[in-house]
Amino acid sequence: MRWCRFQSGSTVAHGIIEGDSVTEVTGSPFEGHARTATTLPLSLVKLHVPMIPPTFYAAGVNYREHVTEMAHRRGVKPEFPPHADVGYRANNALIATEEAIVIPKDATEQVQYEGELVAVIGRRCKRVSEAEALDYVFGYTIGNDVSERTWQRGDRTFWRGKNTDTFKPMGPWIVTGLDPEQLRVTIRLNGAEVFSYAVKDAIFGVRQFISRMSQYLTLYPGDVLWMGTDGATENMKDGDVVEVEVPGIGILRNPVMRER
Amino acid sequence: MRWCRFQSGSTVAHGIIEGDSVTEVTGSPFEGHARTATTLPLSLVKLHVPMIPPTFYAAGVNYREHVTEMAHRRGVKPEFPPHADVGYRANNALIATEEAIVIPKDATEQVQYEGELVAVIGRRCKRVSEAEALDYVFGYTIGNDVSERTWQRGDRTFWRGKNTDTFKPMGPWIVTGLDPEQLRVTIRLNGAEVFSYAVKDAIFGVRQFISRMSQYLTLYPGDVLWMGTDGATENMKDGDVVEVEVPGIGILRNPVMRER
Repeated sequence: MRWCRFQSGSTVAHGIIEGDSVTEVTGSPFEGHARTATTLPLSLVKLHVPMIPPTFYAAGVNYREHVTEMAHRRGVKPEFPPHADVGYRANNALIATEEAIVIPKDATEQVQYEGELVAVIGRRCKRVSEAEALDYVFGYTIGNDVSERTWQRGDRTFWRGKNTDTFKPMGPWIVTGLDPEQLRVTIRLNGAEVFSYAVKDAIFGVRQFISRMSQYLTLYPGDVLWMGTDGATENMKDGDVVEVEVPGIGILRNPVMRER
Repeated sequence: MRWCRFQSGSTVAHGIIEGDSVTEVTGSPFEGHARTATTLPLSLVKLHVPMIPPTFYAAGVNYREHVTEMAHRRGVKPEFPPHADVGYRANNALIATEEAIVIPKDATEQVQYEGELVAVIGRRCKRVSEAEALDYVFGYTIGNDVSERTWQRGDRTFWRGKNTDTFKPMGPWIVTGLDPEQLRVTIRLNGAEVFSYAVKDAIFGVRQFISRMSQYLTLYPGDVLWMGTDGATENMKDGDVVEVEVPGIGILRNPVMRER
């Protein structure tokens, strides 16, 4: 099933996508909901970020080739994390598919994409095993963890390098019933593939993260867990279009503009 | 004006506190709201966290004596931050006044309080000057940034050391119309004062943080900014009671229990 959040006129609602149509529902995908009589062509509605998470988790360094490449560029030895230590991103930075990634005037040229799988929590959980962890996932969507590399290195936290407004595209929608280990992520810049990787090559998978996090934290419906990216990443510039595709989910597509 | 969020029966609502009574309002303090006819004795309602923030910001290292003391304990030279680089905390960890801080079984004895002033954003803001920054603050409340020091040092991020469930007491309510530079924070453990400091001794003040953050981020109504703590901090153990008082706001009081 495909779940989106969309706007038609001044109304923003959750919806179920079937074929080329979206049916508005009352409530939310995580709680009680009911289909309304309103069905619209998907092409006529504006898609929003599928949900605003109560807490926005991000795995950060979670793929060997990405960790190795980033360390190489800084002239240091790659260090792989010993545990699934989750980090955070911020809701202010979220934008929907087709919305513009806006590079601030004072950013350097090193503003880069990171295409990622995103797990969306469906049920409250605490202290779950790896074997049962995926039962608490509602579905999957796609994220682009846009990063200004000089700010990322220079700021004490990642607040500006990772969470500047518009730096967290997420969408286009959530798909249920998928096996994350079977998915691939492909990143394209201006239509040309720049990297493609298998989700299962992660250092720690969705099961490992959810189980470990839940030993200390309660996860809530709508919380998101961004799984990290693999491979080298390249700069994006004014006028570029970046796409992150996960076959089985869809394409998260965002134009890039630089503030003048 | 004092704003709270409270529960009476199964209803959770925002309320305005006057004297010993709370009047329920519809809506929220940040948007349109209206007083209802329901007024209850404050002693008969359960206080909740005053709001669930869209984004939960924390200044982290922001007082010289705290930075110096923490560095001294680790045997390293204190380093003061050159810029107001904000960090994050997580909503899962929030608890209200009078709720228990629960120390997990596998935590060490180094679970410590950090009493802090909390600024609550009232209006959406982007690119505001230091001179106008306080105009975007709705009011102030109190936070206790409970920290497991060995996890804080060992985990790659602060996810477990700072954001374990119940590690972020916030409340008891929000007070409007205060000048943050005039406030003091006093921390008591089992009734005995353990530290007291002036908010104005911060390395960066509320004005500086909001102005700098807003150059890159949009701040939204209900976002919170925890301002950091000063001084040495001590361990809390099963059966302790920790209070953070800010005269002019009130007392955030939490019992401490260790899981068995």
